[in-house]
Amino acid sequence: MIKVGIVGGTGYTGVELLRFLAQHPQVEVSVITSRGEAGRAVADLYPNLRGHYDLAFSEPDVGSLLKCDIVFFATPHGVAQSMMKPLIEGGARVIDLSADFRIRDIETWEHWYGQKHACPDLVEQAVYGLPELNREQIKSAQLIACPGCYPTSIILALLPLLEAGAIDASSIIASSASGISGAGRQAKIDNLLAEASDSFKAYGVAGHRHLPEIEQCLQGMDQNARLTFVPHLLPMIRGMHSSVYAKLTTKVDLQSVFEARYKQEAFVDVLPAGVFPQTRSVKASNMCRISVLEPLERGTVVVMSVIDNLAKGASGQGVQNMNLMLGLDENTGLNLPALLP
Amino acid sequence: MIKVGIVGGTGYTGVELLRFLAQHPQVEVSVITSRGEAGRAVADLYPNLRGHYDLAFSEPDVGSLLKCDIVFFATPHGVAQSMMKPLIEGGARVIDLSADFRIRDIETWEHWYGQKHACPDLVEQAVYGLPELNREQIKSAQLIACPGCYPTSIILALLPLLEAGAIDASSIIASSASGISGAGRQAKIDNLLAEASDSFKAYGVAGHRHLPEIEQCLQGMDQNARLTFVPHLLPMIRGMHSSVYAKLTTKVDLQSVFEARYKQEAFVDVLPAGVFPQTRSVKASNMCRISVLEPLERGTVVVMSVIDNLAKGASGQGVQNMNLMLGLDENTGLNLPALLP
Amino acid sequence: MIKVGIVGGTGYTGVELLRFLAQHPQVEVSVITSRGEAGRAVADLYPNLRGHYDLAFSEPDVGSLLKCDIVFFATPHGVAQSMMKPLIEGGARVIDLSADFRIRDIETWEHWYGQKHACPDLVEQAVYGLPELNREQIKSAQLIACPGCYPTSIILALLPLLEAGAIDASSIIASSASGISGAGRQAKIDNLLAEASDSFKAYGVAGHRHLPEIEQCLQGMDQNARLTFVPHLLPMIRGMHSSVYAKLTTKVDLQSVFEARYKQEAFVDVLPAGVFPQTRSVKASNMCRISVLEPLERGTVVVMSVIDNLAKGASGQGVQNMNLMLGLDENTGLNLPALLP
Amino acid sequence: MIKVGIVGGTGYTGVELLRFLAQHPQVEVSVITSRGEAGRAVADLYPNLRGHYDLAFSEPDVGSLLKCDIVFFATPHGVAQSMMKPLIEGGARVIDLSADFRIRDIETWEHWYGQKHACPDLVEQAVYGLPELNREQIKSAQLIACPGCYPTSIILALLPLLEAGAIDASSIIASSASGISGAGRQAKIDNLLAEASDSFKAYGVAGHRHLPEIEQCLQGMDQNARLTFVPHLLPMIRGMHSSVYAKLTTKVDLQSVFEARYKQEAFVDVLPAGVFPQTRSVKASNMCRISVLEPLERGTVVVMSVIDNLAKGASGQGVQNMNLMLGLDENTGLNLPALLP
Repeated sequence: MIKVGIVGGTGYTGVELLRFLAQHPQVEVSVITSRGEAGRAVADLYPNLRGHYDLAFSEPDVGSLLKCDIVFFATPHGVAQSMMKPLIEGGARVIDLSADFRIRDIETWEHWYGQKHACPDLVEQAVYGLPELNREQIKSAQLIACPGCYPTSIILALLPLLEAGAIDASSIIASSASGISGAGRQAKIDNLLAEASDSFKAYGVAGHRHLPEIEQCLQGMDQNARLTFVPHLLPMIRGMHSSVYAKLTTKVDLQSVFEARYKQEAFVDVLPAGVFPQTRSVKASNMCRISVLEPLERGTVVVMSVIDNLAKGASGQGVQNMNLMLGLDENTGLNLPALLP
Repeated sequence: MIKVGIVGGTGYTGVELLRFLAQHPQVEVSVITSRGEAGRAVADLYPNLRGHYDLAFSEPDVGSLLKCDIVFFATPHGVAQSMMKPLIEGGARVIDLSADFRIRDIETWEHWYGQKHACPDLVEQAVYGLPELNREQIKSAQLIACPGCYPTSIILALLPLLEAGAIDASSIIASSASGISGAGRQAKIDNLLAEASDSFKAYGVAGHRHLPEIEQCLQGMDQNARLTFVPHLLPMIRGMHSSVYAKLTTKVDLQSVFEARYKQEAFVDVLPAGVFPQTRSVKASNMCRISVLEPLERGTVVVMSVIDNLAKGASGQGVQNMNLMLGLDENTGLNLPALLP
Repeated sequence: MIKVGIVGGTGYTGVELLRFLAQHPQVEVSVITSRGEAGRAVADLYPNLRGHYDLAFSEPDVGSLLKCDIVFFATPHGVAQSMMKPLIEGGARVIDLSADFRIRDIETWEHWYGQKHACPDLVEQAVYGLPELNREQIKSAQLIACPGCYPTSIILALLPLLEAGAIDASSIIASSASGISGAGRQAKIDNLLAEASDSFKAYGVAGHRHLPEIEQCLQGMDQNARLTFVPHLLPMIRGMHSSVYAKLTTKVDLQSVFEARYKQEAFVDVLPAGVFPQTRSVKASNMCRISVLEPLERGTVVVMSVIDNLAKGASGQGVQNMNLMLGLDENTGLNLPALLP
Repeated sequence: MIKVGIVGGTGYTGVELLRFLAQHPQVEVSVITSRGEAGRAVADLYPNLRGHYDLAFSEPDVGSLLKCDIVFFATPHGVAQSMMKPLIEGGARVIDLSADFRIRDIETWEHWYGQKHACPDLVEQAVYGLPELNREQIKSAQLIACPGCYPTSIILALLPLLEAGAIDASSIIASSASGISGAGRQAKIDNLLAEASDSFKAYGVAGHRHLPEIEQCLQGMDQNARLTFVPHLLPMIRGMHSSVYAKLTTKVDLQSVFEARYKQEAFVDVLPAGVFPQTRSVKASNMCRISVLEPLERGTVVVMSVIDNLAKGASGQGVQNMNLMLGLDENTGLNLPALLP
């Protein structure tokens, strides 16, 4: 069995990772760390895992992590960079679900995250873990910066258009909406059921940390790429929907372009023309479903994409990266239908 | 007491109208009609009205409606136009909450609604009942076409910008989301709790009936106005949020433009800079709350507006129109805080 | 105008009290206190109150409270008792929405609330503010202990049966469920949307603080009264439902007993036989709706009652008490239909 | 591969069965029937199944069903009984998820279901498919009557107590609550999101069809068993919670009795003392979690059990039965953690 270590498994990406790994036939979790919950059984914190894990949280310790074949970080930003050096030097292969190694320009990272980067030299060798874009580099990578949830849903919506050179990349609009699990398992009044349920709002409109991450990736395909990005908060737990708008610069068969681009992809499903994606169709699964159309043939393309923010938007994508790194079938442990209804 | 008649009060706009009128001190509902529920007590269908109404539904009848000072239509499209002629000729003052008299161009109406218009001659005399735009005409109108919910939220978001000539009106994007009560009280599988809750999706992307209504109104202010409009369905009952995007053509103080435009309006609240609207802040109330900003000063303006789709988006706005027509204080019966939490 | 002071208005009972008082024609709120939010505008904390209150929170101060005709406490337990003495001695008339003065036996209170009672001498003069039981004492009371939400729903369900001597009071079962606003506006992980929505659970099964309060009241009617009480947490904001089970000891016409008992009550609605109450039928209103039946005539009576836990279960009932104390119509400011849908 | 046929797979138990079978390594679905949807691809009706099934619905046909190793009925009551004879005579092994063969007394069935039973002779040979009670008979059964969701949750809560003779079985109270998927995928106004969300109510209080099913099973353990059963409707999709109350007749160590009884069971998890079950801890899984206690040692026992009404309450239990019938590991395809958050 392949040995997996998880740093910081008390949050929602942690429990989701444990859920996916429990159904992965070739993996066992041998270490899971948490400063706050050290000594507590994992299944005590997460009752859905009773009977699936005997493991308890332990204090983070480089030595025991180095005995693992793969180490995941499921921590808030700032943690992975503080522990990464000895792990990489010790030969660990690491998948970081946090934002620490996603942005190449250190100043940009420091500006948006409001702190000094503790490990700038490793940023360059990190591979941005979007398999649909960087599959080959992922296979041999030592350090994966797993994409954010909004970036995953928006980049997958735009990839075929940018690669086809079909849009004016300089004025893209992305209007996205996320379930509240994206805000993490933190005791904040704003995220109480009594506050956030039965309501809908935009947030981070003046500038969200995922914006530079998305633009960096899009600019790799079209250097003029610029985005207005407005995230919204949905009154539900899981699910992310992005509606992306851009001006078409050439006449292309949008449906064909998307179908051709994603034909080989196990986790991107281009829906038939006229069918629009629902977040429930990907709940608990690693799938991204996408629709594209040009309403009323007015020159503006609309792409809609849905993912489960904790799955393809975080932990599922992490496992997909792990499978690639280990030479396993890409969908091992991930080939399960979404939960519906 | 002013006598009110309601045609077709079994739907959600009907019960919401009854709720607002129950708290209106100068009005009594003397007739409420429904073919399907004739003879049934209103409070039997809607248990929240027990103790507030003794009334029963009756068969629609022009004679008894003509005895009312104001007649509301809370019917699906097609009904009001089929009954309007004798009412208007008999001198009734009518507020139509449906789409029948909103669109001036008969062909356009017939195209989008897929049927012949049964009363085209009265369309021209109908006043579009958005008080913030047409207050004076409403006061003396005999026939009000009360705006749709999406149009209300989007037009109020764009009014100050178009009047100030500050945006390129030819490529506006409106990404809106509505609670499911907007779909009405109809037995459809798609609207079941087990289908629509815990999910989010776009719909009507290829063309929604509110698009021509919005464009007609915007074109009254800027004849080049064109909109890409994508409505989404929220997993909750009430509430509508529109995020509207446009390119700025001149440098204006957005906050001041909005505050000045809506200073006198009782039901449009421009939020302080940096505060974004939440649908819960207008739940059950006739208020519209709006924020405006230019993220990162990149030349794209984002306006966010929230309304309760059944209140300012339908029945509350209907009562606001009624107050204007009757020379009452505009906020009589409407001056109640939203329900929070 | 009658002057009202509110101590501790930052929680959900506080904002609900402000919502009810905003629609009360004879009252103005002149003081609202909060240590944590002193200086902040009420409408800044609660956006639904924008345009309804100019007031800001101030530091608690006995002097300014004594200038009010009525003082509400909307505080966690322990606060009212610590400030009550000078208020009562200064002649204030006080309605305490907290648990501080509900339980006559000081030891019992101290046992269940885990602290010393700071003001035991005033407990005896407090009137338990359930108008349907203690209307006359409320009118002249100086200090009202406003009932808890579970007690209100359960006592109103049992009153007619106990007064009629129709049940074995020694083994009553009450299985209740509450919306999460009952847990207050506190930053706790358990009450996050991502934790508490899409789930249902019992809590406090080994012993909930409302149990002694309910039993004290029931024992006033039947000294043998004993209850097994299991509260559950609903994945929604507002609403409380109690299903109460007891053995019938005599054959009575249950429907008639209930209708007769509550005939004169403005805020208790006995539903027609065969119709069961839904929490949505009382949302945002001060109403309690009740059904009673003996399923399959097997000797066990089932009573179901619904209230809005923040309204009839707290602040609405507080206003009802206030109206009685001031000699106003009992339903002034409270006579509004519930919000449906 | 084992061949499975499904009759009537368009409902929620159908899609849940397909979800479980998709992750079952030894099974393939070779036939799925639906009169209404014949010819339509399964993945077209249920977008979560895109990529997992190529199958289309076909007209029900005994011949093709007889080629299957196991036939499931996921139909409303009345259907299975009308097709059962030729299937059983043709040697099929059948798992009926509907109520057709659960009740041994034909008159009782006909009374509660309001129709003549079309196949009374096969009722006696049907095995009630609760593995925790009837494991051995299930293994060799030809016809399984899979238990209802409420019966599963209530019987598992009472089994240890009845087997230990620890309670007065003649006056049990079961207060249960179910997610709305239990009402099926039918276009009913009562089940709309706008009607059923944000509310809670009891239903079927005068007599629910699951009552005789539960009592028949309990009376197999204690012939005096009698139940007052009140089901409630939760504003969520999946999940069932039963709170069961009974008088203790002897002093037993409740925790030990439960732990001992369910020690060997893969799908019944007795929680540690003091921990109460939440429905989310079993969402999408076949698990039942149970707590037991005697609050305040007053002689009344409270048992709380949770299941996913579509999983252990229907299709998951169906697969568990199938595994037993086929001699497979009982948890094949079922050994997945619940979905949390």
